[in-house]
Amino acid sequence: MPHAYQILLPERVLTVNAAFECLQDTAVVLEDNRIHALIDREEIGQLECYPQAQIVELPHAVLMPGLVNAHTHASMSLFRGIADDLPLMEWLGEHIWPAEARWVDSTFVADGLELSVCEMIRSGTTCFNDMYFFPDVAAATSQQLGMRSVVGLIVLDFPTIWAGDADEYLHKALAVHDEIREYPLVTSAFAPHAPYTVSDEPLRQLAMYSSELDIPVHMHVHETAHEVAEAQQKTGMRPLERLDQLNLLNPGLVAVHMTELDDFEIERIAEAGVSVAHCPESNLKLASGTCPVGALQERGVNVCLGTDGAASNNDLDLFGEMRTAALLAKAAAGDARVCDARQAIEMATINGARALGLADRIGSIEVGKLADLVAIDLSAPNTQPVYDPVAQLVYALNSRQVRDVWIDGVRQLDNFEFCRLDPAAIATRAQSWAARIGSEA
Amino acid sequence: MPHAYQILLPERVLTVNAAFECLQDTAVVLEDNRIHALIDREEIGQLECYPQAQIVELPHAVLMPGLVNAHTHASMSLFRGIADDLPLMEWLGEHIWPAEARWVDSTFVADGLELSVCEMIRSGTTCFNDMYFFPDVAAATSQQLGMRSVVGLIVLDFPTIWAGDADEYLHKALAVHDEIREYPLVTSAFAPHAPYTVSDEPLRQLAMYSSELDIPVHMHVHETAHEVAEAQQKTGMRPLERLDQLNLLNPGLVAVHMTELDDFEIERIAEAGVSVAHCPESNLKLASGTCPVGALQERGVNVCLGTDGAASNNDLDLFGEMRTAALLAKAAAGDARVCDARQAIEMATINGARALGLADRIGSIEVGKLADLVAIDLSAPNTQPVYDPVAQLVYALNSRQVRDVWIDGVRQLDNFEFCRLDPAAIATRAQSWAARIGSEA
Repeated sequence: MPHAYQILLPERVLTVNAAFECLQDTAVVLEDNRIHALIDREEIGQLECYPQAQIVELPHAVLMPGLVNAHTHASMSLFRGIADDLPLMEWLGEHIWPAEARWVDSTFVADGLELSVCEMIRSGTTCFNDMYFFPDVAAATSQQLGMRSVVGLIVLDFPTIWAGDADEYLHKALAVHDEIREYPLVTSAFAPHAPYTVSDEPLRQLAMYSSELDIPVHMHVHETAHEVAEAQQKTGMRPLERLDQLNLLNPGLVAVHMTELDDFEIERIAEAGVSVAHCPESNLKLASGTCPVGALQERGVNVCLGTDGAASNNDLDLFGEMRTAALLAKAAAGDARVCDARQAIEMATINGARALGLADRIGSIEVGKLADLVAIDLSAPNTQPVYDPVAQLVYALNSRQVRDVWIDGVRQLDNFEFCRLDPAAIATRAQSWAARIGSEA
Repeated sequence: MPHAYQILLPERVLTVNAAFECLQDTAVVLEDNRIHALIDREEIGQLECYPQAQIVELPHAVLMPGLVNAHTHASMSLFRGIADDLPLMEWLGEHIWPAEARWVDSTFVADGLELSVCEMIRSGTTCFNDMYFFPDVAAATSQQLGMRSVVGLIVLDFPTIWAGDADEYLHKALAVHDEIREYPLVTSAFAPHAPYTVSDEPLRQLAMYSSELDIPVHMHVHETAHEVAEAQQKTGMRPLERLDQLNLLNPGLVAVHMTELDDFEIERIAEAGVSVAHCPESNLKLASGTCPVGALQERGVNVCLGTDGAASNNDLDLFGEMRTAALLAKAAAGDARVCDARQAIEMATINGARALGLADRIGSIEVGKLADLVAIDLSAPNTQPVYDPVAQLVYALNSRQVRDVWIDGVRQLDNFEFCRLDPAAIATRAQSWAARIGSEA
């Protein structure tokens, strides 16, 4: 089959390459699902190079890499707003876990994931790192929708609808890992829920599989001071120390939340190459604590960004999360220079790709990478005038200014309109779930 | 002239009345610029009551009071993104103040204000409390655009383009106060910049005028720990104590920022009836400190919300500010119950109206009040499904879901389109300012 070419003509290209170049008068040429070339806009007159190329004019737009949501529970969007203004353990124990036990099945996972993918694409996210029940369904649904994802091979000590005990979780994890090889948009990560819900033996086993099979590990770690104190009381150790003993502190680990970290621990995770998935809005909303982003960045830790699930955020808007992360990092450090606009963009793009083991494929606009791209219209009053497009993207943008989205070279949003998803039909399905769930709440 | 009627038919009416009622199957009838009646939707068949009424269907929409931005410097939107990631005093002293001295004139104020009004209407704000040079121009421009505002009668010790000394500031303040009586949408407040830029004598005089003429006072107070410490060193007093001695602590004062407050001060401002204008995003971005919102609310202080200027936020999106305020208040108090969704909505509506002395006219949907209203479409994926519309408005909404806006009964936004403003022309004017300002930066 002949190659298909698209030539994108934005006003600016924010590459998020190592030099963080922002290019003007540059055309981005896609060949099938890959970034084929960045060329001077003037050279595109020589169209014979790219037979039947589709020319895409993107006036007033910044083209940048699609955002990577490094931690979410996508299907939980069906529980959005079911319980708010409550602390973590009360929210989980009295609302979320009972609702999950009552309602979650494979259809719930597919319908909730579709709602979330629709919201994520609309707001510029092109890849998400998921942790939820039925990762097989999540993988199939994500692939079918054309969305890139890393599904979570969940592991828990206690029985749920997905598995009965740790052995069964691990067995199913490996089965799903094999099964999804057929989906080009989907990879997987082990997803042991948290140190306080998974015991040593399954963690030891999955650390071994992770290393042998090169599968990342995605885990909630040090979400609250309470978690750390309770672990110290029960085990005599802080959870990170226990994970270290279990050989989990390495570049394959995506440690989510990390609100409680002492200097020694920051040093240790920097040395071990652990990635931190920071979820500022969820941490604020549940009053869980504050991740020391400035100190982590200073030590060279790879900090990426997640929204967490829509039941504790309550949206999946990674542009909003980026802004909250930059603002909160300054306040937490007491220094307005901390987490500048460039660092915020990197957290939401290349750092997320790196955490998920995908930095060779996505996270920046560089020749050879996959075409996961978003075009953003800066002509709206809230991003005018433009002195510095990077500052506008972080500090002033509304995510509805995302005008176009490509995932794996396929257009998902075209001048603010969905190309493949039907948001009205998706909302109707969500409403029918809410009618049932709400009637018993 | 016969009365003009509009009958609005939303899915829900969030009244923000004292009982915080959220009504379904309710029609809101406007007579000219006022809310005339809330009636059962079924009764609107009896149209003879309202001859030639315009029927406005608002499917999937929540109708709520327009938002009140209790602190901004509207015209500074022309400096949006000129300098970021810097602490307050460096940002002011090395970037903002020099830029103001170089560029601000009456045309700058008009053009910047128009850009900001466009952004504010688009994101659901129907009234703003301004503090900037040329309040006469701000008043005329705001009236002409159809936007409700409170212009700031600025007072400083040192000369600027607006006045040469404190006497001239006060003289011009009273002149502008008189002059704007002809503008039905505009009132005014004294706007002494801050305790550290205005000395005792002018403060004493404006306190007297404020009391005699019933003019509110709008002032930055305790923005940073540095400000408080420096004042203690220079005067032996914390700024609030000084303002108390100058008879400024009373229900007419809108104290902006208030990040540094001890228990005694919280008690004192509660007792005095001072309103606090909380600007969470500006405080975070400049690492200025954190206003103790939970403690203030617990003591019954009227806390309202401001965006501050677009040079330190960098947007004027009060829905976003509401969300940040609710999230930050929980984290600051270490309690997820603090500043719940209802309190966040009240901060951005009725509390702002109360602070500005306008609570008898705006801030809630009640018969007899002026028709400053916004309709919000909850059908987008990020606000689906809807278990609790109030939680969706605060925790999941994107301000682009504001679909209609009325100010003083006049439609400003109709199904997402501007009725009176021309955003493209406004952006073009902003760009021409940026071309000049940026070329010298």
